Amino acid sequence: MQRVAIVGLGLIGGSLGLALRARVPGIEVLGVGRRLETADAALRLGAVDRAGTDLALLREADLVVLACPLWSTAKVLEEAAPYLAEGSRVTDVGSVKASVVAHALTVLDPDRNPFLGGHPMAGKVVTGIADAEADLFQGRPWVLTPSDGQLPGGWERYVAAIEAVGAVPLVTTPEDHDRSVAMISHLPFVLSAAYLASMAEDVAWPAASELASSGFRDISRLGAGNPEMYAAIVAANRQEVMRSLAGLRDVLDRFESLVQEDARGQVGEIFESARVTRARWADEHPGRV
Amino acid sequence: MQRVAIVGLGLIGGSLGLALRARVPGIEVLGVGRRLETADAALRLGAVDRAGTDLALLREADLVVLACPLWSTAKVLEEAAPYLAEGSRVTDVGSVKASVVAHALTVLDPDRNPFLGGHPMAGKVVTGIADAEADLFQGRPWVLTPSDGQLPGGWERYVAAIEAVGAVPLVTTPEDHDRSVAMISHLPFVLSAAYLASMAEDVAWPAASELASSGFRDISRLGAGNPEMYAAIVAANRQEVMRSLAGLRDVLDRFESLVQEDARGQVGEIFESARVTRARWADEHPGRV
Repeated sequence: MQRVAIVGLGLIGGSLGLALRARVPGIEVLGVGRRLETADAALRLGAVDRAGTDLALLREADLVVLACPLWSTAKVLEEAAPYLAEGSRVTDVGSVKASVVAHALTVLDPDRNPFLGGHPMAGKVVTGIADAEADLFQGRPWVLTPSDGQLPGGWERYVAAIEAVGAVPLVTTPEDHDRSVAMISHLPFVLSAAYLASMAEDVAWPAASELASSGFRDISRLGAGNPEMYAAIVAANRQEVMRSLAGLRDVLDRFESLVQEDARGQVGEIFESARVTRARWADEHPGRV
Repeated sequence: MQRVAIVGLGLIGGSLGLALRARVPGIEVLGVGRRLETADAALRLGAVDRAGTDLALLREADLVVLACPLWSTAKVLEEAAPYLAEGSRVTDVGSVKASVVAHALTVLDPDRNPFLGGHPMAGKVVTGIADAEADLFQGRPWVLTPSDGQLPGGWERYVAAIEAVGAVPLVTTPEDHDRSVAMISHLPFVLSAAYLASMAEDVAWPAASELASSGFRDISRLGAGNPEMYAAIVAANRQEVMRSLAGLRDVLDRFESLVQEDARGQVGEIFESARVTRARWADEHPGRV
């Protein structure tokens, strides 16, 4: 892996370019943006050594990282395939894995161009290259999703690069990944957005918003995210998002019944389970709190 | 208002004492704690000029601030009433107002000891005096709730003190307050806690928790709060919490139907409504984001 091409120069692609150039000696980073301005911005930022809008640039790369939005990954992979050099490897950074991995196996010959799904668990509410930063992946999990959950040979240098940019590589199946991220990322977004949408529909919202402070700030932060991106994520991970939402609704059903019965002790037990769950996670992952 | 007594020396009572002593010249702050250790801690911190566990201390105060937990306010007010000096005023800092205000009117003679409900919209996950700070109220709304929504005469010096500690006084009815805080404070807590409780019940949680990062952190922050305190808040504001939860469930119902139908555009519209609602609030209240 001496020459990496990043297709898609947004927050993740730009940050990855910055991080690789800063932390992996001797690497050359090529960038392919959808628009010339983005490619120029990536060059100016120092996120890439060379950049353009032409996928033919991929011919020179040993490794291709698809960092385009989830909804365009399938199409971009199909367009990119003819330009891949013999033996070059392909990975992605999308937040849903089973559908992406299954599709890649229909597009690429695994003997000629091995594909490995990947997902750096890093992001911001903003998604453009202007906010890219070399430290974006520091301390964050970077999930790799071989179909059988076993990392095949040939990816050692990429795993080392992931570690070099400060991330923590974790290997699991695409299905287990999708279940986990539905629980800890997609459902939280859905909840935050549904909460905000319900506020917007409430006639009492203008008065209530005057009092909104830290509680509102925390619960609504995720809901500020890109609607198009999250609609694509929910569509791509529909089954798992619905499964985790059903679990939440079970708890809300019980909560409502208990409140109606004024069973304050049992309401407190639900809240205590919540408190303990958060406290344990915070104890085990102090760097993420 | 030269001598203020604070009953209940936790995070709010302690912070109020610190703030009043720092920012209101000539004021004397008396503190009544449930336990002698708390009273001593308040003295050591400089949150009070004098402190003890005996409500007889209230005899010396022009203004009494009930800053005890919501579930004990009614009982404490009844115990405190015999010690109130003629003409001294009483207020509180509880997060639910209609029930507290109605109860106070049955306990106190409004001509002898006028009562005004109050609620500083400030707090932390922790609730003890050890975390008290003079700046806790800075820039935060401090709601005052006269029964008819009109601030009566005689409270001018208290309002000035609220402004002196950095808070922004807002006057509304107890009922409107309770509706607003159900929406922007109690429902967010319930959602965060129900989400965490549903994670704890999911067999996939141990694996998912390894990937939990900023999205999980944000949605779960409130759920770390004191279970007993929030169970009391939900019980005291049951009707309004159920009303706002019903609004949220309406949105979740629609969301589920749209996802099942793969109506990605309409799912995106819900998310866009969320994004706009958050962005407007953030624009209008830059100091609270």
